[in-house]
Amino acid sequence: MKINNPVLNFRWLFLILTASIPTLLLPGHASAQDKSMVVRLAKLQIDAVQLESYKAALKEEIETSMRVEPGVLNLYAVSEKDNPSHITIFEIYANADAYKAHLETLHFKKYKTTTKEMVKSLELVEVAPIVLWAKAKG
Amino acid sequence: MKINNPVLNFRWLFLILTASIPTLLLPGHASAQDKSMVVRLAKLQIDAVQLESYKAALKEEIETSMRVEPGVLNLYAVSEKDNPSHITIFEIYANADAYKAHLETLHFKKYKTTTKEMVKSLELVEVAPIVLWAKAKG
Repeated sequence: MKINNPVLNFRWLFLILTASIPTLLLPGHASAQDKSMVVRLAKLQIDAVQLESYKAALKEEIETSMRVEPGVLNLYAVSEKDNPSHITIFEIYANADAYKAHLETLHFKKYKTTTKEMVKSLELVEVAPIVLWAKAKG
Repeated sequence: MKINNPVLNFRWLFLILTASIPTLLLPGHASAQDKSMVVRLAKLQIDAVQLESYKAALKEEIETSMRVEPGVLNLYAVSEKDNPSHITIFEIYANADAYKAHLETLHFKKYKTTTKEMVKSLELVEVAPIVLWAKAKG
């Protein structure tokens, strides 16, 4: 079907946009089809003296990953209020390939090199989702 | 301004919708104005025999909270692959009032009563966000 009438064209665009709105507004609720997702908790202890430098490097790495890697779905990094050098990162990747690709990116490698002497311990915990539910603005 | 022309009306709707798209498509990225958010990790150990019952109760509680409480922004519940009875819940509330209100809801109280004998230990860790970044479908 060819549409040359500009008003009709407008209507098509409008219909397409309207149809997409509910999907965008729905909370991100992990469902049965998300079973290929890789979900992980990274628990780190950072050298307190280098904490601010570590956080800056981590922030840069997360922001780049989220912007350029479609398969990196969630990166939540937090520090404990009572022990600020104890960091937890909650990571969600679309699937194992997305996770593997992430490890090979230049920005991830740069982060690993930069923070090598800042990280006192790192524990990686593979987890299985029970429920993952986030509103659009998390 | 009153708009009676149906085509013009269409254009207005279209413009409003188009203007809203970038906001909807942007990842949920916690920014400076989100400093009032309450972010918490709940770390639980569940009686292994009652794990499935516990997960069902937790799932119901999370789904109700996310549906009916606008101030509950994120509830991610995961179990460790190597220790499935070790559960972590990553919680984000819009602010302290939203968190307090959540504790007073009937569904939360029901969850607490139902799971009382299932939870062997519970540790609540207040955390400060470094970066929280989630794509629309998390």
